Amino acid sequence: MPRIAGEFALIERYLAPLSVPSEGAFGLKNDAAVLDIAAGDRLVATVDSLVAGRHFLPDDPPDSVARKLLRVSLSDLAAMGAEPVSYLLAASWPLDIEEEWIAVFCQGLAADQATFGVTLVGGDTTATPGPMTLTVTAFGRVRGTRVLDRASLHPGDDLYVSGTVGDAFLGLRYLQGGIDGLTKTARERLAERYRCPEPRVALGQALLERGLATAALDVSDGLAADLGHLLTASGVGAVLRLQDIPLSGPAEEGLALLGEPPEVVLSGGDDYELLFAAAPERLAEIADLSRELSLPITRIGEVCVEAGLSLLDAEQNPVALKSTGWTHF
Amino acid sequence: MPRIAGEFALIERYLAPLSVPSEGAFGLKNDAAVLDIAAGDRLVATVDSLVAGRHFLPDDPPDSVARKLLRVSLSDLAAMGAEPVSYLLAASWPLDIEEEWIAVFCQGLAADQATFGVTLVGGDTTATPGPMTLTVTAFGRVRGTRVLDRASLHPGDDLYVSGTVGDAFLGLRYLQGGIDGLTKTARERLAERYRCPEPRVALGQALLERGLATAALDVSDGLAADLGHLLTASGVGAVLRLQDIPLSGPAEEGLALLGEPPEVVLSGGDDYELLFAAAPERLAEIADLSRELSLPITRIGEVCVEAGLSLLDAEQNPVALKSTGWTHF
Repeated sequence: MPRIAGEFALIERYLAPLSVPSEGAFGLKNDAAVLDIAAGDRLVATVDSLVAGRHFLPDDPPDSVARKLLRVSLSDLAAMGAEPVSYLLAASWPLDIEEEWIAVFCQGLAADQATFGVTLVGGDTTATPGPMTLTVTAFGRVRGTRVLDRASLHPGDDLYVSGTVGDAFLGLRYLQGGIDGLTKTARERLAERYRCPEPRVALGQALLERGLATAALDVSDGLAADLGHLLTASGVGAVLRLQDIPLSGPAEEGLALLGEPPEVVLSGGDDYELLFAAAPERLAEIADLSRELSLPITRIGEVCVEAGLSLLDAEQNPVALKSTGWTHF
Repeated sequence: MPRIAGEFALIERYLAPLSVPSEGAFGLKNDAAVLDIAAGDRLVATVDSLVAGRHFLPDDPPDSVARKLLRVSLSDLAAMGAEPVSYLLAASWPLDIEEEWIAVFCQGLAADQATFGVTLVGGDTTATPGPMTLTVTAFGRVRGTRVLDRASLHPGDDLYVSGTVGDAFLGLRYLQGGIDGLTKTARERLAERYRCPEPRVALGQALLERGLATAALDVSDGLAADLGHLLTASGVGAVLRLQDIPLSGPAEEGLALLGEPPEVVLSGGDDYELLFAAAPERLAEIADLSRELSLPITRIGEVCVEAGLSLLDAEQNPVALKSTGWTHF
């Protein structure tokens, strides 16, 4: 007796129901999906793979793995200012996977489909003797011809970040047994931030529609690393103020227990907050947007002419960054 | 010293050049790509993963792995009648991969980009402790509202297949050391058919534009298995004539050496030929199309009311199918 149903049965039982709202998905029976785009809209596409043990923990709950998988791609759409529409799923399941795992995984997809208004429109399932490897291709739309991009950093622009920085990194440290003594609230909050990021979809769309940002990206590999690549590509530098980096209460609690300085959060990945640049005169509009969205948006520094990324403490003294982030590769 | 360059250096060195023709790819520096579609066109999207050791052999030449990867997805587009446009690549490289492997892999992508007129527009690279896992999301376009699909099999329709059947399956058997005594020509031809399928892009587009096919699919898991799923989904059956199944000379040579009957080719995967149904009165037009494309298109049977797939020999006696194909799962 096989441990789980065959590929076609799995697709029919768990995945096809996720495609119901989309005619172009053909109930997942076709080789490909048809994506319809209204006149004047542009389609934005992004692909991300998560590998068990590298991008999520093998014992993470299957529904939270599903949500992280989808949200990592939705975060890419957010960084372009796109409205999420649909996605394709390519899943390489391990040979010994239990059908129950797939069932709960698909419950997570269903929950986030409702949250973000997206629909599964196609996919591929394979077996692998290696770790589970999950790939989502997400589609979004933007109205008109503009998108947010990474290309336009100007000296004098302010740098902003949404939400708080470092929670996911500390959540991973906690889940790996690396922080003792956290309160229950902090444990839950940090673990949740690692397992289930919040793609800043509404923020990205508003930044694009209002023309507020000159460049934007989502922070996946760590704020210092992701900003560093952007600075290099743009041939400019930046100064960040350490005391302005937004930390959550649980993150401060975790750092205190670890005895580590606050700047380590700049090297932590998986936050999926938006980092963006804006002209100084847009400050008040950005504060308004923060209130509208009930989302902290913090000015953390400025773009400058001189190359490199500098971090200053409250006395304007430079703070060394030990590592500029981790890499998934 | 790391064995290979970091993720960003690899992208810049090998992958970004593949994106040059597309403005929407942003030189692969953005999180996502913008796909532009002309008014009146529809976008078709498909995703496929290949896992080393399951869908290609670990010692297959890297450029042929690249071409198979791309062609498997282009074959899905062909089965919908779409014209290939662009693709996203998500690559999970093993930890011990050599940079030279990636370089030659990207040469294969470049060669097929030229052959099929497609461009890399985005992607993701990760590392995996498991087997290499490569995922392509391919995009194509169709003019107008119709696509080829799998939904419309009618009793009385003829069934056709392009090219020849079983070469890839026999190529795999040969590459695994399972066939001794093949001529050099047969060895090369069968191995090539396994490693580098020919997506029937022009055929798919012509079938759609001329309204010739009532249903179409590409044969990936084996003709009997893929047709079987289609028959079940449509609530009809089919009769195939064994003597009409098109076999190449190298395939006949391989079958003779193995001492196996011709029907085994119906259970062999990886051919990526198009299987389609058409009304009997379209016979002459399909013969014309075959000549135009210089591509054999063979009528191999008919759709019937009675459920199930029957295979008849030259004396109209039923031939048993031992296995209805293999599954990637």
